[in-house]
Amino acid sequence: MSGGTLGSRAMSGQWDPAIVDARAWDGRPVREHLRAAGLDPQRVGEAARPPGSLGAYLELHIEQGATLEQDGIDIGLVTGIVGIRRYSVVFEGEANHAGTTPMDRRRDALVAAAPFVGRVREVAMRHGIVGTVGTLQVHPGASNVIPGRVELGLEIRGLHETILDGAEHDLRQLAQLRPVSRKPPVASSELVLAGLDRACEAAGLSRRRMPSGAGHDAMCMAALGPEAMLFVPSRGGVSHSPLEFTEPGHCVNGARVLLAALLDLDQSDILDS
Amino acid sequence: MSGGTLGSRAMSGQWDPAIVDARAWDGRPVREHLRAAGLDPQRVGEAARPPGSLGAYLELHIEQGATLEQDGIDIGLVTGIVGIRRYSVVFEGEANHAGTTPMDRRRDALVAAAPFVGRVREVAMRHGIVGTVGTLQVHPGASNVIPGRVELGLEIRGLHETILDGAEHDLRQLAQLRPVSRKPPVASSELVLAGLDRACEAAGLSRRRMPSGAGHDAMCMAALGPEAMLFVPSRGGVSHSPLEFTEPGHCVNGARVLLAALLDLDQSDILDS
Repeated sequence: MSGGTLGSRAMSGQWDPAIVDARAWDGRPVREHLRAAGLDPQRVGEAARPPGSLGAYLELHIEQGATLEQDGIDIGLVTGIVGIRRYSVVFEGEANHAGTTPMDRRRDALVAAAPFVGRVREVAMRHGIVGTVGTLQVHPGASNVIPGRVELGLEIRGLHETILDGAEHDLRQLAQLRPVSRKPPVASSELVLAGLDRACEAAGLSRRRMPSGAGHDAMCMAALGPEAMLFVPSRGGVSHSPLEFTEPGHCVNGARVLLAALLDLDQSDILDS
Repeated sequence: MSGGTLGSRAMSGQWDPAIVDARAWDGRPVREHLRAAGLDPQRVGEAARPPGSLGAYLELHIEQGATLEQDGIDIGLVTGIVGIRRYSVVFEGEANHAGTTPMDRRRDALVAAAPFVGRVREVAMRHGIVGTVGTLQVHPGASNVIPGRVELGLEIRGLHETILDGAEHDLRQLAQLRPVSRKPPVASSELVLAGLDRACEAAGLSRRRMPSGAGHDAMCMAALGPEAMLFVPSRGGVSHSPLEFTEPGHCVNGARVLLAALLDLDQSDILDS
């Protein structure tokens, strides 16, 4: 099963009925987990609300990164959730005996692939996005055989499709990219961000505008109305781990800004628009 | 089981009794294969002959590389069998979320490891040896996780320990090498090479002096007396494969040179020395 945020997918009308047959982390189908939670797998889609039916949606989350903690910032104002494009990249060479094939007669797929890893980093930095080669397989993968084929997994993430297009264009000059998956970015509402901004100001908390590099419920809820998120620092940026931790003071900061922004937005025109 | 040439290991007094317990390619212990061939596994070591007991040893083999074929040379005169040094090289970084960790706060082990692959090639070429990164594992190896650790398998092969020492020294400037295995090079006998050279001359065959990048029986037999090998071209350099093929004419060339060199050496002082 790819991705999470099942509740907000259903509520925002983006429920795919096939999800109930997919396997969850424990190998059991999603339908069993839904039943165990007292839900009817066939009726989840009925949770959908009409587009535009929410005046605003706010979401408080830990950063899942360490930049707020490292820089001593209280609150992150999330300007959007990054789009993610994944690719498979293959470098073909010629597998051959590593002892009997002279250096000047080799077509070593790993020698060809290696510089691409550093180039991905350069391209990402030039475009102000993140880019990662997270997987790399060498074939056949024996100490005495020149690599004949290298396959690597690449992803880029950014807030703007046009910037992702530009980075993808640059990467295509370097290697042939086979698209594997693609999620569009979701921009936050400036009206909601303004409300969060005023709430931070009133609470005397430092803040920074930043993208969210990970997916969140807000991504789905954007279909129902204007949304934005706020982040609080997470220790060491660790998340989805028993070591995940946010100082109680930061949790309180987040809750205070969330409340103040809700009250602020409740007084504004946003709910009537 | 590591390596082959069991017969010459036994004959040259380099038999390790533990070999009979090792597993062969089919998973059965070597002792079973020895018995099936009518041999007594406990008595293989008795085949040993005393050092210096052979006047000379010659071995005819296909090149297992494509340089003779590509360059239209009839015979390769093997100046020695390369030494092989294998290392494990680890690059440590910090695994982190590929979406939420900005480019300038990453310690990406694959970005650190990738340039090393090209450097191995440069160092090998500078020292006139071969060097190969044949394996590379990325940990944890997920598309959305920055590589925290990369382990690669490196080998260098060369005819001279001092040159291998120099290459190893250069590589140690680039990364920490953990030695995995080491086989010393074996130099051919100049007296035997001279005999082969005269035999080629007499037969009107073109020849080239070259190292053997792979291991052979001659490597063991060098313990018993002066040795050298001759190579004939192998089509496409393919070996250990059903596609291995050497033109009948090249086989005849090899056999003629082998015979002529044996007769030549039989007339020389080498057998009395």
